[in-house]
Amino acid sequence: MNPNDSAAATLEAHILEHIPLARAMQVRVPRYASDEVEMTAPLAPNINDKGCAFGGSMVSLLTLAGWGLIELGLRAEQLACDIYVGDTHIRYQEPAWGGLRGVARFTEPGALAALVASLQARGKGHADVQCEIRGDPRAAAILTARFFARLRKPAGDPAQSPAA
Amino acid sequence: MNPNDSAAATLEAHILEHIPLARAMQVRVPRYASDEVEMTAPLAPNINDKGCAFGGSMVSLLTLAGWGLIELGLRAEQLACDIYVGDTHIRYQEPAWGGLRGVARFTEPGALAALVASLQARGKGHADVQCEIRGDPRAAAILTARFFARLRKPAGDPAQSPAA
Repeated sequence: MNPNDSAAATLEAHILEHIPLARAMQVRVPRYASDEVEMTAPLAPNINDKGCAFGGSMVSLLTLAGWGLIELGLRAEQLACDIYVGDTHIRYQEPAWGGLRGVARFTEPGALAALVASLQARGKGHADVQCEIRGDPRAAAILTARFFARLRKPAGDPAQSPAA
Repeated sequence: MNPNDSAAATLEAHILEHIPLARAMQVRVPRYASDEVEMTAPLAPNINDKGCAFGGSMVSLLTLAGWGLIELGLRAEQLACDIYVGDTHIRYQEPAWGGLRGVARFTEPGALAALVASLQARGKGHADVQCEIRGDPRAAAILTARFFARLRKPAGDPAQSPAA
């Protein structure tokens, strides 16, 4: 297994273990490259009363994909961080009548390097991500969000909790 | 049971029957008034890997609340419509460490009356809704969204599907 496949599998296991809603959605992480992560979910557990995908499921999948893109990018740099989603905009363009495939990318090409530099200099930073539910001929939904990262404090530090 | 309580109970049953993710989230609809609907969900099925509420759960609850506010308002006017969520903005303000309580209201006081007039005149219309996850001292998350409604065609009309 190449390092990216291994990282995707580890992320999938982490999400399914710690986020019950992702389990209910049957989220999978089939693909990761340094600049892109893909997450999928079948339609059945994510359907709405009109027979297409529930908007909340699309947003949940895209939010997880954006968070995962940053989580995996920072893990590759040996940076252990807490990562939070911030202001988010969603454009729903088309109903999705089949399984969901969400792809997340950084909005700017140098975003990950800039985030790493900010974390190393100040212990925190942010990056903008664009995620979409793939569709034909156009995306079913596009989510843009700012994610915030903060270096995790060493164990024993009273400020280590994300609540701090 | 007063008409608003009965409407809230009917909406809850509809959501839980037709939206599996709402079942997984354990959504409830404890309160409806003509200008406000409240939906709740416990933390456990909506928790994330940091021990607070998953952002996707908050958005899902607020999207359901906004949709429900319009659905109930139009049902009270005897209008059977398909209602879709459109452009949505979310501001995450604070982590939510307990059960979620989401409240939806129309952004403008006359929004429901304007939507009803538009549906009666043109068969379609839209309304803006603001929904928040209650928190102390401030909301954990605020969602603003535009919802679109379209009068359902009579049975037998080939255009009756929401896909049309």
